[in-house]
Amino acid sequence: MERSLKNIKMVVAYEGTAYAGFQLQINGPTIQGEIEKAILKITGEPIHILGAGRTDAGVHAWGQVVNFKSATTIPLSKFKKALNSVLPRDIVIRIVTEVAPDFHAQHSAISKTYIYRLYHSNERPLFERNLVYYYPYPLQVNKMNEVLPYIVGEHDFKSFQASGSLIQTTIRKVNHCRLDVTGMEIRIIINANGFLYHMVRNIAGTLIQIGGGQINGADFQKIMEAKDRKRAGPTAPAQGLCLQEVIYST
Amino acid sequence: MERSLKNIKMVVAYEGTAYAGFQLQINGPTIQGEIEKAILKITGEPIHILGAGRTDAGVHAWGQVVNFKSATTIPLSKFKKALNSVLPRDIVIRIVTEVAPDFHAQHSAISKTYIYRLYHSNERPLFERNLVYYYPYPLQVNKMNEVLPYIVGEHDFKSFQASGSLIQTTIRKVNHCRLDVTGMEIRIIINANGFLYHMVRNIAGTLIQIGGGQINGADFQKIMEAKDRKRAGPTAPAQGLCLQEVIYST
Repeated sequence: MERSLKNIKMVVAYEGTAYAGFQLQINGPTIQGEIEKAILKITGEPIHILGAGRTDAGVHAWGQVVNFKSATTIPLSKFKKALNSVLPRDIVIRIVTEVAPDFHAQHSAISKTYIYRLYHSNERPLFERNLVYYYPYPLQVNKMNEVLPYIVGEHDFKSFQASGSLIQTTIRKVNHCRLDVTGMEIRIIINANGFLYHMVRNIAGTLIQIGGGQINGADFQKIMEAKDRKRAGPTAPAQGLCLQEVIYST
Repeated sequence: MERSLKNIKMVVAYEGTAYAGFQLQINGPTIQGEIEKAILKITGEPIHILGAGRTDAGVHAWGQVVNFKSATTIPLSKFKKALNSVLPRDIVIRIVTEVAPDFHAQHSAISKTYIYRLYHSNERPLFERNLVYYYPYPLQVNKMNEVLPYIVGEHDFKSFQASGSLIQTTIRKVNHCRLDVTGMEIRIIINANGFLYHMVRNIAGTLIQIGGGQINGADFQKIMEAKDRKRAGPTAPAQGLCLQEVIYST
């Protein structure tokens, strides 16, 4: 007898502080592991989920997307509540829908938006302390804004890729990149058709050097052209990063 | 030889989640205990601090005020940074000043402002989960607003005092009380010349009953007049409460 499998898409938010990243691994709890345990509890199915992006240890998400095939007969309207009732409080299933059989959380994505949060103040952050990178040194936001046009568009972002990555192409298209300054926070908001490993954190680290005056706009262009990780700034800490949204064509 | 003692006032913010409350006690870490340990580390002085309000376990503060007498010769400009460098990340000293010898964090206060945060949504809160009370049931904010005038002014708040409290008078003057609705949040903001034990949490619990339609405005007036804790609504959970500000005449 053939089982009828649903392809289920879920939008998931989490605070990554307590986790060794999204993807299953042996050295610590993961977001994937917790969600798979919750699905097993609710449906009895020992399945694996696919995530749109493999966020690192300490990285957060508001709009991570996962999908999996399930034979569950639980109505989707109840599925979200059931999963949330057994998940830890730092992981929240926001939306559950049934999608076409060929939907793939990673391959079907047309773009993703990440937000990097800098807390720029003399005062330590309190309530946001695990969600921001506390940066108490001088920063000129106008200088940071000036280099954003170099980032937008289709470019080879090899200089912003973690060294040692083995992938076919390091060309990505950044659809938009802007800064949003609110209160003590400077948010770097970047949308692209794909991201290299550590790309947002390396861009953030380099933008901080621009804001601090260690390098200027011409240096930034040279870093882009060099296609050499050693030329760009340091990798900004994981805790400031959040996978905000994954966009699909339908 | 007589030592010259400074009277030091500090404005302190903290997330109360991990603490057994502000005040020193044997069954768990406290805000007072952590601050006193930090002062001991920095100045070598085993002193006790006085707090403006004794927040309960799980209650937060943005503007708690403490004072203490110290013979420290560390310049106050460096004192804040030194204390913050040894305090846990969930306690932040915001302001340090030297004040007149007769300043007393509790007795000199002319009013305090508390904020109670309700998270009113079908979705569980994520990043705010320890700072709000998640309330996924129907609430009519306009009904809650209608009873606020009964709270403002000088009244006997005995019905909103934790039962078993032994104090001389239960009359307090509420200077203002309003609701601030932003996104998923309903914030109850209340300023008074003093607060009875659990007064804000009991008012919050009763306002929730008003918003949910279990009781109406006439019932609310009767609760005020009854001067009986058993008549008012349940005590809202500690985690939604924050001591926002303590106001002094100078």
